[in-house]
Formats: sequence, structure tokens, C-alpha cells
Amino acid sequence: MVTVASRAELERLLEDDVPHGDLTTEALGIGAVSGVMRFSARAPMVLALVEDAAAIIEFAGASVELLASSGAALVQGAPILEARGPAAALLRSWKVAQTLIEIWSGVATETRAIVDAARAASPRIAVACTRKNIPGTKRFAAAAVKAGGAVMHRLGLSETVLVFPEHRAFLGDVPLFQVVERLRVSAPEKKIVIEVTTKEGALAAAVAGLDVIQAEKFTPDDIASLVQRIAAMAYRSTRPIIAAAGGVNAGNAAAYARAGADLLVTSAPYLAKPNDVQVRIAAAGVKAPGLIEVA
Amino acid sequence: MVTVASRAELERLLEDDVPHGDLTTEALGIGAVSGVMRFSARAPMVLALVEDAAAIIEFAGASVELLASSGAALVQGAPILEARGPAAALLRSWKVAQTLIEIWSGVATETRAIVDAARAASPRIAVACTRKNIPGTKRFAAAAVKAGGAVMHRLGLSETVLVFPEHRAFLGDVPLFQVVERLRVSAPEKKIVIEVTTKEGALAAAVAGLDVIQAEKFTPDDIASLVQRIAAMAYRSTRPIIAAAGGVNAGNAAAYARAGADLLVTSAPYLAKPNDVQVRIAAAGVKAPGLIEVA
Amino acid sequence: MVTVASRAELERLLEDDVPHGDLTTEALGIGAVSGVMRFSARAPMVLALVEDAAAIIEFAGASVELLASSGAALVQGAPILEARGPAAALLRSWKVAQTLIEIWSGVATETRAIVDAARAASPRIAVACTRKNIPGTKRFAAAAVKAGGAVMHRLGLSETVLVFPEHRAFLGDVPLFQVVERLRVSAPEKKIVIEVTTKEGALAAAVAGLDVIQAEKFTPDDIASLVQRIAAMAYRSTRPIIAAAGGVNAGNAAAYARAGADLLVTSAPYLAKPNDVQVRIAAAGVKAPGLIEVA
Amino acid sequence: MVTVASRAELERLLEDDVPHGDLTTEALGIGAVSGVMRFSARAPMVLALVEDAAAIIEFAGASVELLASSGAALVQGAPILEARGPAAALLRSWKVAQTLIEIWSGVATETRAIVDAARAASPRIAVACTRKNIPGTKRFAAAAVKAGGAVMHRLGLSETVLVFPEHRAFLGDVPLFQVVERLRVSAPEKKIVIEVTTKEGALAAAVAGLDVIQAEKFTPDDIASLVQRIAAMAYRSTRPIIAAAGGVNAGNAAAYARAGADLLVTSAPYLAKPNDVQVRIAAAGVKAPGLIEVA
Amino acid sequence: MVTVASRAELERLLEDDVPHGDLTTEALGIGAVSGVMRFSARAPMVLALVEDAAAIIEFAGASVELLASSGAALVQGAPILEARGPAAALLRSWKVAQTLIEIWSGVATETRAIVDAARAASPRIAVACTRKNIPGTKRFAAAAVKAGGAVMHRLGLSETVLVFPEHRAFLGDVPLFQVVERLRVSAPEKKIVIEVTTKEGALAAAVAGLDVIQAEKFTPDDIASLVQRIAAMAYRSTRPIIAAAGGVNAGNAAAYARAGADLLVTSAPYLAKPNDVQVRIAAAGVKAPGLIEVA
Amino acid sequence: MVTVASRAELERLLEDDVPHGDLTTEALGIGAVSGVMRFSARAPMVLALVEDAAAIIEFAGASVELLASSGAALVQGAPILEARGPAAALLRSWKVAQTLIEIWSGVATETRAIVDAARAASPRIAVACTRKNIPGTKRFAAAAVKAGGAVMHRLGLSETVLVFPEHRAFLGDVPLFQVVERLRVSAPEKKIVIEVTTKEGALAAAVAGLDVIQAEKFTPDDIASLVQRIAAMAYRSTRPIIAAAGGVNAGNAAAYARAGADLLVTSAPYLAKPNDVQVRIAAAGVKAPGLIEVA
Repeated sequence: MVTVASRAELERLLEDDVPHGDLTTEALGIGAVSGVMRFSARAPMVLALVEDAAAIIEFAGASVELLASSGAALVQGAPILEARGPAAALLRSWKVAQTLIEIWSGVATETRAIVDAARAASPRIAVACTRKNIPGTKRFAAAAVKAGGAVMHRLGLSETVLVFPEHRAFLGDVPLFQVVERLRVSAPEKKIVIEVTTKEGALAAAVAGLDVIQAEKFTPDDIASLVQRIAAMAYRSTRPIIAAAGGVNAGNAAAYARAGADLLVTSAPYLAKPNDVQVRIAAAGVKAPGLIEVA
Repeated sequence: MVTVASRAELERLLEDDVPHGDLTTEALGIGAVSGVMRFSARAPMVLALVEDAAAIIEFAGASVELLASSGAALVQGAPILEARGPAAALLRSWKVAQTLIEIWSGVATETRAIVDAARAASPRIAVACTRKNIPGTKRFAAAAVKAGGAVMHRLGLSETVLVFPEHRAFLGDVPLFQVVERLRVSAPEKKIVIEVTTKEGALAAAVAGLDVIQAEKFTPDDIASLVQRIAAMAYRSTRPIIAAAGGVNAGNAAAYARAGADLLVTSAPYLAKPNDVQVRIAAAGVKAPGLIEVA
Repeated sequence: MVTVASRAELERLLEDDVPHGDLTTEALGIGAVSGVMRFSARAPMVLALVEDAAAIIEFAGASVELLASSGAALVQGAPILEARGPAAALLRSWKVAQTLIEIWSGVATETRAIVDAARAASPRIAVACTRKNIPGTKRFAAAAVKAGGAVMHRLGLSETVLVFPEHRAFLGDVPLFQVVERLRVSAPEKKIVIEVTTKEGALAAAVAGLDVIQAEKFTPDDIASLVQRIAAMAYRSTRPIIAAAGGVNAGNAAAYARAGADLLVTSAPYLAKPNDVQVRIAAAGVKAPGLIEVA
Repeated sequence: MVTVASRAELERLLEDDVPHGDLTTEALGIGAVSGVMRFSARAPMVLALVEDAAAIIEFAGASVELLASSGAALVQGAPILEARGPAAALLRSWKVAQTLIEIWSGVATETRAIVDAARAASPRIAVACTRKNIPGTKRFAAAAVKAGGAVMHRLGLSETVLVFPEHRAFLGDVPLFQVVERLRVSAPEKKIVIEVTTKEGALAAAVAGLDVIQAEKFTPDDIASLVQRIAAMAYRSTRPIIAAAGGVNAGNAAAYARAGADLLVTSAPYLAKPNDVQVRIAAAGVKAPGLIEVA
Repeated sequence: MVTVASRAELERLLEDDVPHGDLTTEALGIGAVSGVMRFSARAPMVLALVEDAAAIIEFAGASVELLASSGAALVQGAPILEARGPAAALLRSWKVAQTLIEIWSGVATETRAIVDAARAASPRIAVACTRKNIPGTKRFAAAAVKAGGAVMHRLGLSETVLVFPEHRAFLGDVPLFQVVERLRVSAPEKKIVIEVTTKEGALAAAVAGLDVIQAEKFTPDDIASLVQRIAAMAYRSTRPIIAAAGGVNAGNAAAYARAGADLLVTSAPYLAKPNDVQVRIAAAGVKAPGLIEVA
Repeated sequence: MVTVASRAELERLLEDDVPHGDLTTEALGIGAVSGVMRFSARAPMVLALVEDAAAIIEFAGASVELLASSGAALVQGAPILEARGPAAALLRSWKVAQTLIEIWSGVATETRAIVDAARAASPRIAVACTRKNIPGTKRFAAAAVKAGGAVMHRLGLSETVLVFPEHRAFLGDVPLFQVVERLRVSAPEKKIVIEVTTKEGALAAAVAGLDVIQAEKFTPDDIASLVQRIAAMAYRSTRPIIAAAGGVNAGNAAAYARAGADLLVTSAPYLAKPNDVQVRIAAAGVKAPGLIEVA
């Protein structure tokens, strides 16, 4: 079972929650009783990080059967995994595993909603999620975004060229086309992306030869008008990619797609509510009706 | 400046975003130009993790003046910090620092809203946040919860005794009062907490001598009725703490407080929207009107 | 096999002792010869951390059969584990595994002695070990304490409320009952513990409503007298837990227990002598009499 | 201030004890009050790791003045360090810093006792401590051993050649002189050390040309007799170093030294009782008599 | 002083070389004597990682004055840095600091040679270094490449689209233009790069619309012919970037540049000989002629 | 399979190259196709780190069959390993595994060349490699050196006594024999090594009783003359080891060996060119002729 995070990283998550043993289980003296733990979907959801959650349960001492994979769209009640082992193992890993799935599936589910809305309107449009995840969680964020069907806009500052107005503040009077020339020499294998906040800025960027124009907080109408204007530029042999960014979400993704954007850039999935994963734990041999349901 | 996270941990956050340098700034050749970066509140917010964000900016090579501290309630437009140094330092640390403050201040702000709502109705009530933060972010979560005026319900499994129905599934027919006796011997310095999902369960727990009854998904009316029933138990010399848990948020906190809960247990702050922090960056010497505003 | 420490942490222990290979074994050219290594108890001992020691031997390249578990009380000569594999694996992991068991079993054995002495006098008394272990070894210390039958007094500063005289130095004239009130609001789910160094201080703490009175360096007679005085306090509906701390060890644990203490708090196990574990290593096929005995 | 451990390693020690803040101090609301904390020796001691302890206090937010250095022999009452800063900083770092000094100074003090006893009898004798420290604490152990005036016998398996009987079990019938030849080729820059458990074994080792003979559990008389026998070996141009090992401690070090051992190898310091360090903490401005004494 | 590596990472380098103190210096008892250490260039070199080396010397306890910065082209004899402090600090950090500069300056110097040779022939050509550095050293490799004036070809697999023949082996009969379409949708913000090993493959890639054609082991003549063929493709509005890869080095860079390559991709700098850095160490006050020269 | 590096360390190498997934493979949608990957030697080579490389491929999700072990001398075309699994696993681990083997086998191959050349002239001579590997790669360097048949000269500063002229600069007028005496007391179990740069210095060191004389940048003739002079020193009962250091490589190793050096100390292997490892990857079921050859 290949996980997104390394074994060492997943061990840290478990240690973080259970640094020195499970006091309640130990005090109750129930650790050695055999049990079974089942995770299932309380509502439709796109699953994420389930392999990593399963690995955590296994480190804690139980065996796990995966019943669905990251990226799967689950219906309500669909089984996710089943773990068997001593109560100590199940009770120790339960919440870390559940929370990992719930939070990142929430991100995957919202990502999928945006992707589906956009693609219904424009089948070849792409959706990219920003790096505005909680600092320190990028590995999980990137995996959840992929599980949802989108890509990462940029992983960080080291591997993409994205010119913000803040960069231009330090460039003085250098005209934009010269900025592009400078960047072409330094980064010939990268597309040159620029963030613009006005339609004039966007057109100037198109004229200057930028590869991707990231239109920040444009309305769908603004995007549509921009797309038309750029299409009409006869003197440019290739047209730039138009990316709509800033406030894009599942509610307006279709509108932006219809407006002709090539790419939607969004942070909305990181604000998604976690998906509820139902966890049922029982002593082994106890019949299903006896299972205790956990919120 | 004392930070919540260690230097090594904060360095990792910066490396995570900028593992091998800032490609755009280097390709533009603007790294050595002096500049100033100012963070301020776009809307009222309770500030969190600002000291850690400032430390990150300093590691990147700028000097920082803190203009507000974690825990402060800021009005719209209130200044947060000002950093001065080469563009390379400002542009490298900008987003990590901004995102760290935005996300955790969102948690602090929502926490404060719950605390304020509850205390307006019942001045001595406490608010505790669960450990349902994203796995791997507990240090920041705990700091944001404190900045918001609440406490952590439990940090993990090693330091509190909280009996879930899942534990009882492994206990067979042992009566609850014997469970309590067993726990008293094992953990004499801990309060014994139990999660109950029905009023009958709550009363049984009170009779059995539990210290804290965590009433899961009770309505405020359920809580009020429970409080009255327990107050009427003449044969118990001390009454248990009644904690309302499951679905508690800023909208219903006052109702739960009026119902007589001693403690509100909530995960709601982790679902809060990040607060917007306005960042303005300028080449040094450029006047404020020339500052570029960043979303 | 579930270990106390993570795989990454146990790998570090092995690397710490063998960072760049086993020079002697390599220079002798004997690494590939098959062998067997047996650990047994040289004297009666309570075993601790044997699962972690076994995991280290396995990382080094041998297979291990556990013959006893952590927490077991072994008689002299009792087998602990048997490992089989190439000499390189056995000789590489031998001392780290042996030392880990010896030192922490020493702690477990001394802990058990205190627990047994105390419980013989007072069957429901609890024993708690302090956090005065060597900084950086808490995970092993906590596991050894549990293997010995005691609990950890507190894991650190983040999860318990323990008022030292040093705290009161910063409180000025605030009366103790107000201190308690303040703490009840902030930490409603925690017992409030206070360290006192005089009988007067202890009584004042009982009056003020503290949950646990940690009597520092009281004699058993002092404890007995304190217990009586507090029992006679008619106006308090519940009596506080009386914890004897400071100088408690296996020699005086029974006396403290007879005096009526509810809890013994001790650092004595950390001063225990390591238990001797006999290690016998032989080339495979060599008969037991030919085994070389290691001190 | 140069520390033995890295900043990252010392930060981990503090995090280990205070992962998510100091609950008592925060609940009491006294964190911002200024205070002073003084460490001094309760009894004569050889100080160790004081620079690392001071660094921990500084990370916690106080300023520290060192009043003695690692390696210093302190008289009773001698000052060690003085820290000034907010109560939050002092109370957070107090115990970790105190415990670090107490435990490792105990090791240094016992080491010094052995060194002093041995050197009084034989001024050029050396004392070496084994690697039987608690796994994971070698950096501190090595520093304490040095502070005590001894050296480390071996740091691990990668940098010394020490032939145990266990190695010989895998060598079959190879005569010892051939073993030495093999080792000389492989490790020409290392002294070849052998552990022997009988006088005959020791003499055979001397004949075979070993550089260091580690005589395990020999009595002082055995050592004296061995030294004489080896001195009489006319045909060997250089005599091997005779190291007494196994059970060497401050009580018998002089006897071993008088017996003619060149080197004492001991694990005894790791069994030493920690030295008591008196800690006094006061709110700033409070006079010394008002200081609270901590056990 | 901003370093490439984090403090924690640089501390690890020092610990790796000096895990438990500097035995020779301690045994000689010279650690406290004041001294000065000067680094200078033995031959012309392009400096790299000097800030990180200086930080290591400072962690060891000396103060450092930087006399040149990473990226500087030094003449023979040019001063690099001067450190002052106790002998213990200088002797402890000397070799790690020296080796860090020597090895990575070697990479920077060779990189610069390739860049200079290529740009002399074609001023706007770019040079990119592969990720074939020693696994685990990418942070330093990337910094040295930048110091030499080149860029990193790709940092890893997560941030660039580079289709190898190995990928195509898993694509069955999908025509290349469809592969490109698939990639455009998935990665709209990335240039699509393909590695080709024949001229026919290169032309097919140009027809299929790839953005960058990485011609593996083409001769300069092959490149020139390819450039001409592609320039003649009237039906393609933009021409792809032609990158020469495989065997490019300082000796043939000019030829590839003259052939019309837009980009040179090379691993040659990682094979460069380290630059010799002369280190002179003296006890403080001793005149320069008395300095001891170190190879 | 026992690896040189820990699992956690190898996981970091993979994460370093693929922190957030393999963008190309994911964008192409070929990850789940089964495949086979074979590594073989393009030219004769001494293999190193192949077990660690195999472990990396396994973490990535493929199964590996090792066809040769570290230390083996391979003929051209000899198979190294074969991996089977999904394309995602093969393409993700390919380059890290290949580069790890190529670079460190290069070091092993060059080491073996020096060892073979020296031993052909002087069968019992030893070869030791310095610690001038790239900082941070010592674990791999030491393993490659061993695979090549040499030993590590010193692992760092903590475990060997090597007096450089730089140390003597801090010793003032202390005569060398007194320096040796001081070191004998401090480090009785270590050979005392000195670096000398002149024949006079070497003779003085022999007279003063040093154990190893490291002759820096002596010619073979210088070494021969030194060996003769020292052999003629009738008054010294044992002669020191003569180590030739500085510029020793495969080309002159035989000459140094014939000159009578006991030991060659060299950094030359670290400058070796990586060995080429041929990697062939195919979709499973595809016949060998269809395999794609990778440079």
C-alpha cells in the first residue's frame, strides 16, 4: 500500500495524538480484547488519504482491509475500510485516521464539485488549487486536490514564474516586454505567468507576450470580454492562457468556464467542511446491530 | 520574541514553500532592492501566530516590527507588522507568513466569538476546543485556541480519561460504577469524563460518580433538563460538570450557556474562514499611496 | 509487533551506536556467518521495552522470537528473546538492544517494588512517577513506568494544573480560594493540584477546595495526621486526594500507604540500577554449552 | 554560548515537556509578571551541561547569566546561573533546565570521583566511560564524562576495534595472532583492543600482539599479577595497555590504579544519583529572603 | 546573514563531523587559546555556499567576517572569510566549512565556465543543470548552480512535465499529438517537454506541438540541422525551444550554442573537481608569516 | 534486506525528488499500467548502495529482485536488479535509485582501483579514504568506500587523534614528545597520528613516538627515503605506521606501495565519475527487444 506521506511522517501524526500511550484504554484494562472497526461514508463524498489513514491504523497494531481508494466518489453509506485487531490498536488510531480522511476528503469533495461544474460547461477546462493550504500540510493538500481531479497551481516559489504586482514594484520603469525577455532567458522551460487586477493590465500582458494571464477577481463577464479582446489580437500568433483567480468556487465555476477561461485557480476547497466518516467499533464477534455508532 | 513553534519547525514551513529559492524574484534580478512590507487587518479579527509569522520573515532576511500581539482583537485596518529588508527576503516569506496568520487568526476569531457569546450569557462558563484539527497542526491549533480565549479539551489520548461508548463496547457487563472505581485507582489525579448520547445515559453517569458528563448532540433544552435533574440528586454530594458537545458554535453558544452547561466543547473554530490580512509591499522610499495592495 | 517508539526513532538509536557500520565485525570478515543470540534474565526483573529492543534487532537484519512481554515479572534465568541471523546483524544490534532492556527494566522493576509494597498495605493506592527522567527519554520512561504498574504523574506542563509555591510567588496577595476559582474556570476538566510543604499549607489547601494535595517531603506520620485532620473537616463535602511526594521509595512506600495517602508520587525508579540481561551469542549449530556468556 | 546539543535538539527537549504551553501559568494569568530564577548547588558537585540548560531557558524567553561553567567543581551553595524574564519563561523552562543539569552533573561528579581516586594512586592513569548510557542520550553522556575528566571508551561500533569473545565464536579455529594480523591490515590506524575474562586469555592476548587488553571483572590482585607477568615478557618490545573493566567504581578505582592498570573502563557514573540543584524563583524586586526554595 | 540551508540542517552537518566533541583539541588542552582562521582562493574560482560555511563556523563559537559572497568570481589569492575565536571553535568547524565551499564552488565554477562559453557564442542562451546531483544534496546543488549563473532544469518530478521514452512505453498506440492534448488539459500552466533521441523523433515532436524538445546526445551538427528544419515548418506559428542535452560540457557548449540551441541541459558541473580553498590558522597575535598553510 | 541508511533517511531521498507526486505520469494517466524495470552495468563497475536503491523502489510501490550485491565487481552488461510493479512506482523511483547507485558505485570503483593497484605491489597495504565527501553524505560515502575494499581514515573529529600543524600553532613551545605524552594520558586507547609536510618533521615525529605519521604530499621517493631512515632508528622498539597522503590516486598508488608506505590516505574516489547504469523500462508483457534504453 503506497501512501502519500512517508512512514516516518505518518508515525509522527500518531505520536502527536498518542505520545505516551492511551490512558483511558490502559486504565480500563481493555486493550487486549479483539475488535473490529468500520469506516463508512455518512454522505456522498470524494475520498482522500484513505491509504495513509489505513497505514496509521496498521502502525497502531491492527490489520486493515481497504474497501475504497482515494479519488473514489462514494455514495452515502459506502464502506471505506475495515480494521481488525486488539482494542488498544483500534482505539489508539481511530481519531487520527478518521480526522485525516474527513478533512482531506472534504477538500477533495469540494475540488471535485468545482471540476465537475466547470467541465460541464467547458469539457477541457482545468482547475488548479493554490498553495493557501495550512502551512505544513502541503503533502496532504496536494494529494486531496489530485483526488478531487484538479492540479496544484504552484507548489511553491522555487518552480514557477509568477509575476505579481509586488514584483513590479521593485522593477522601476522597466517595460513589461523587457521583463518577459529577461524571464525567457532565465527560465526558458517555464511558462511565464502574470497576475493582473484590471482588464487593461491583462491586455498589456497579452501584448507583452506573457504565457498565462491570471486575472485576479475578474467577474465572469470581465473574463468573457477579455477572452474576446485577446482573440481579436491578430498580431499575436499564439494566445495566452486565461486563468480566472480570486473568489472562484463551485457556485461560479460554470460561469467562469462559459466565459472562456482556460483555467480556474481556486483556494475554495481548503475552506470546505470536512466530510463525516461514520466509525463503528465493536468487540469482535458482536453482531452488527450491537455496533456503537460514532459521530 | 518567543514563538509557539521551534525555530526548526518554522524553518521547515519556509523550506516547504521555498525549497530551492524564489525563481521569479531571482529571474527578475530584483532581490537586492530594499523594500517594506506591511500587514494589516482587512476586517475585525482576533490575531494569532503573528510572532511565528514574524520569525519566518526574519529567517528570510528582513527585520520585523510587531505592531500587535497574538490574542489582540483588531479593528478593521489595524496594523499587524512591518518588515524591512531586501525584496528577496520580503517576497520569499510573504505568503507563508500571511497564510499562517490568516488561517489561525480565523480559528482564534471564531473561538473568541463562541467564548464571548457564551460568557455574555454565563460569565464563568468555559469553552474547550477538540483535537479535530488537521493532523500535524496541533501546536498551531492549540495556540490559536488560546489566542481566542478557550482551552484545549484534550491534547491527545495520553493525558486525559474520556470514556467513549466505544470503550464500553469492550467492557462487557461491567457496571459503570465499577468502571469508575477502576479508573479512580488508575488515574487518581484525573477527572473522569464520559461521553453520553442520551439523557438516561447522562443520569446514569451522574449516579455512577463521573466527574464530567460530556453530553453529545444534546439540544439546549436537553441540557437544561439534564442540569435540573442532576441538581435534584440529593444523594450526590458534588455534582458533575456538564459539558455540551457536538454541534456547538457561535450561533448556539449562548443558548447552551443559558441552559446551564458548565463547559462547551466545540470543533467549530477549525471550520472558520481564514481572516483576510492585507499585505502591502513597496520598494523602500516609495510613498504609501504607491503601495500595491494584495488580496 | 507494536513498539513504544516509532520505527524512525528506533532507527536513530541504532544509527547513534553504529553510524557507519561495525568496524570490528567487518575487519574480522565474519559478518555473513549465521548465529543465534539469546537474552535471559540474570536475576528476577520486571521486563520493559523488549518489543522495541526486538524491533531494533530486526532492523539490523535478524529475525526475533519474543519469549516474554513488557510488564512480565521474570524469574532468574527466564528467557527473554531469541534472535537468529547473520553475525553482522546480531553483533550490530546486541548492545543497543541489551542496554535498552536493562535500563528501562531497572525502572520497571523498581516501580513494581514500590507498587507492590504500597498495595500490600493499601490495596487501592496508586503510584505515580514524576517527569524527572532524563530529558529526551520520556517515551521510554513512560512505558517503563507502565510496565511497572504505575502511572505518570504528569507528562509535562501542557496537560495538568499543578500549583507550585513558585507560581504563588507571582500571584501577590490573591487568596488561595480565589486562585482555585480562577483555575476552575480556565480548566474545568482538570483536577487542581497543589504542592504544599507544611501541614498548615495542606490544611489551607483543603479548605480552599483543591482536588489534590501533593504533600512534599512529609513523613508518614505527617501524612497520617494530615489525613485525620482533613477527614474531620465536616464542612467539606468531598475530601481532596492526598499525595505523598518527595523521597518516596520502595523502603517507605508501605509506611506512606498505611498512613492513608491516596497516591504516592515518586522519582525513585529513575535512580534504579539497570537489570542485568544475560546475552549468549553463538555461531549457529553450536550447542548451548558452547555459548559465550556476556556480562 | 556554545552548547553541546544543537539548537534544534534543545528545542525538542523543551517541546517534549511543554508541547502546547504551560497550562498552570496560563490559567493563573501570571505569565507576564517579571521574575528572577537562580540555580545553585545544594552540595558539592561537578557541573555539567549548564550551557545547554541556559540555552533552553533563553529559548523560553528569559535572559541568562552563567555563573559557572561545565567542568567546574562547585562547593555547596555555589551559584550556577541567574535568569531574568517573564514568569512564563522562567516557569516553562525551570524543570527541563534543572533536570538536565542535575542528572548529567551527577554523572560528571561520579566520573570525577573515580578519576580523582585513580589519579591519587597513579597520576597518569586514564579513565574511560563505556557507551552503556541510556540509548538516545549519548551526546549528553559524552559531555558529562568529559566534564568529569574522563574520556569515552568508544562512541559506538563504527570507530574502534574491540574483539569480544562473541566475535571469536564466529571465527572458528583461527589462532589469535592471525586475527590480529587480519585486523592490522584492515584497521592500521586503530589500536586493537580485546576483551578477556581470564588471566590465561590475557596472556595469550599479550603474546598475540594486541594493543589493549581489557580485563573484564578481574580483581585488583588479578590485575597486579597480570601486569607483572606481562612486564616479564622479554620477547615483546612493547607492552600492551592493561585496561581494568567490569565493576570499576570510585570505591575500588585506587586499588585498580595501584595494581598497575593503565586505564579504567567504567559504567559506574551512569548509575550516579543526580546532584541536587537548588532553584529559587521570585517575582522581580522581591528580596532574596522572600525567595521560594524548590527541592 | 541568510543561508541556503536552515540552521537545523547546518547544525546537522557539523554534528555529522563532530558528534561528540573534537578529541584531538580536547586532549591537547588548547581549546581556549584565541586564534584566527582565514580562507582564500588558491586559484580562480566562482564562490558558492560561503554564507552557509560561515554560519557553521559561527555555530561552533567563532565570529566571522565575510570577505566575498556566493556567486563572486575570485582571482587567485582572493580572501573569502576571516574567523576569530577560541581554537576549539576554529578547529571544530574548519574542515566542514572548507569542504562545503570547495565542493560546491567547484560546481559553481564549472557551471560558470559552461555559461560563459555558451553566451560568448549566443548571448541569450540559457544553461540548465539536471537533478543528477548526489541524492540528499539538492539544496546545495541548486544554490551552486545559481551561483554559477545557470538554472535548475527541474527540481524533481512534482513540478515539471517531461515525457521520456519510458513514459511512452506505457502509452501504447496513442499518437503524440493526443498525448500533448492530454497534458495541456492536465497541466495548462506548464511547458510540455519531451526527450527525443533521434532527429525524426524531434521533428515529430515539433509537429505534435511540444513546447520544448530535449535532444538527447545530438551532436552540434545534429542540433544545427534540427533547428533549420524546424524553422522551415511554415505551418507552426511558434517554434519549440530546442534544448541540447547529454554530454554537454564547457568544451562543447560554444558549439551547441552556435548550432542554435536555445538551452543547454547539463550534468557536467556535478563532476567538477572541488576548488582548493587555502586555510590559514594561527594563534591570535601571531603575525601572518607565522600562519600555517593547509592543503 | 539490510540497508545502509535508515528507512526514514531513504524516504527523505524519495520525497526530495518527488515531494508531491509525479506530475508527468499522473497527467498522462499511465500510473496503473504494469511494467518491469531492469538495471544493468554499462561498463565494468564495483557496485555500491544497491540495497538502498532497491529499498527506495520498494517504498515507491514495486517489488524488487536484487541480482547483485554491494561490493560485487560487475562485468559490462551484468544485471543489477529487476523491479516489477505499476508504472507509477517504477517511474517515480527510477532516477533516485539509478543516481544513488551510479554516483556511489563510481566511488567504490575508484576505491577498488586504488586498492588493487596498491595491493598488487604490496599485498598487506591498507587504503583509507578521507572524510572530504560532500557534507551530509557520510553514511553513503563510508558504505561506498567499504564496497570498494578500503576503510574510512577517520569518521570525524570525535573518535581519532590526528595532530595537524594547525594544532601545534596553539601549543607554543611545547616539545613534541611532551605533546605525545599528554595525548597518551588522554587517549590511551587511540593511536596518535600526526600530519607532517617535511621529511624532517616526519623524523622528528618518529623520534617523539607518534604511532602514525601521515606524510602529506610526499613523493614516492620521499616516502621510500623516510621508510629507510625510520627503519634505521635502532633506539625505537616499534616503528610508526607510515601513511602517504595528499594526491594519492590509482595512478600512483603502486608507486607509493612499492616505496614502503603502510597505508595510503586518499580523497581521490570522491572525484570519480559516476558509473553508468543502464535502465530499461517496459510495459509488462512487452518483449525484451521492445525495451527502451535509457542513458
